[in-house]
Amino acid sequence: MQLHNYFRSSASYRVRIALALKGLAADYVPVHLVRNEQSQPAFSALAPSRLVPALVLDDGQVLTQSMAIIEYLDETHPEPPLLPADALGRARVRSLAQDVACEIHPLDNLKVLRYLVRELKVADADKDRWYRHWVETGLEVVEQRLAGDTRTGRFCHGDTPTLADCVLVPQIHNAQRMNCRLDHVPTVMRVFENCMALPAFASTQPSACPDAA
Amino acid sequence: MQLHNYFRSSASYRVRIALALKGLAADYVPVHLVRNEQSQPAFSALAPSRLVPALVLDDGQVLTQSMAIIEYLDETHPEPPLLPADALGRARVRSLAQDVACEIHPLDNLKVLRYLVRELKVADADKDRWYRHWVETGLEVVEQRLAGDTRTGRFCHGDTPTLADCVLVPQIHNAQRMNCRLDHVPTVMRVFENCMALPAFASTQPSACPDAA
Repeated sequence: MQLHNYFRSSASYRVRIALALKGLAADYVPVHLVRNEQSQPAFSALAPSRLVPALVLDDGQVLTQSMAIIEYLDETHPEPPLLPADALGRARVRSLAQDVACEIHPLDNLKVLRYLVRELKVADADKDRWYRHWVETGLEVVEQRLAGDTRTGRFCHGDTPTLADCVLVPQIHNAQRMNCRLDHVPTVMRVFENCMALPAFASTQPSACPDAA
Repeated sequence: MQLHNYFRSSASYRVRIALALKGLAADYVPVHLVRNEQSQPAFSALAPSRLVPALVLDDGQVLTQSMAIIEYLDETHPEPPLLPADALGRARVRSLAQDVACEIHPLDNLKVLRYLVRELKVADADKDRWYRHWVETGLEVVEQRLAGDTRTGRFCHGDTPTLADCVLVPQIHNAQRMNCRLDHVPTVMRVFENCMALPAFASTQPSACPDAA
């Protein structure tokens, strides 16, 4: 397998974590987003969305969208499971993942920040305020859900990592890099620290990637 | 079951379609977003995200995030299936759904448009340009994927509706309401028309809802 990805892309990092949790190897193919390599024919032929990550299977099939890729990995390599055994638990884990992947991350994507500045002429300070607003309010939702539910354990759901942790942890890395407030989300940060103590999360973090600056 | 939702919310419409395809009944509980009813205690106690839809099960369990809800309905009421039988097919359907739910819809959500105008002082015309930009470019990605894959059939994936159609169709309703360009996505529109010919899509559309103006 080949993972076309970028060290700072949080959607890429989600898949790197899942691969590591499953003990699966994939060649690391860097796609430099700031240099717009995602818009070059070599990559856009793989992914019309021009978004990383893209996972190319050994038979050439291309998978896109990080949560869909992780579900595929979980179905084809069931151990250790990244989703709970019960339908209600799976719904909770997917919903927590989507609280990050559908409510926070899309608003702070590079292409979105560029459109704000280049097309809408939003000042840099306002762009940063926008970034922090969605991260801080979005993580507050996750905090309320984690703190208010007995199913939260060492990780988002119980005592083993799930899809929800694969999606949450990269968002915290971004939040830290952009100096977002995090003192209002203690349960989120406790889960984050528990995740980062695991090699699957630590060894795949942005700073550990081959294309890190 | 109770579905807390809003007629114009496309995430709500996704779940209405899935319930109808499954032949499941749920009480319709309107949450008027323009009047900010989602921020009132009655609703925010159900959903810390203050986002519709929320599905309340008969035992009081609350499910949020439309794609997670639809997967739950599919797991607990398997017929007719809303995901393909093979892992690669499921990855494709989830990925198509996420191309809409993670790349288009979050940018055009009411709370986001309000933030642009109220906080960043973006002019109404620029806000509308922003809206159309993400819809038109995002649907172009879906078009390329649908047109370039033999697995596309009468619907996004084969000849029966899936999660991808549940997510795509509400986005087209929004696009039409906001006068977005759609002549560049003929395959998308063919799938849309095939969906709207089915009662599950037509009878649950915004204009048919009890809270429609």
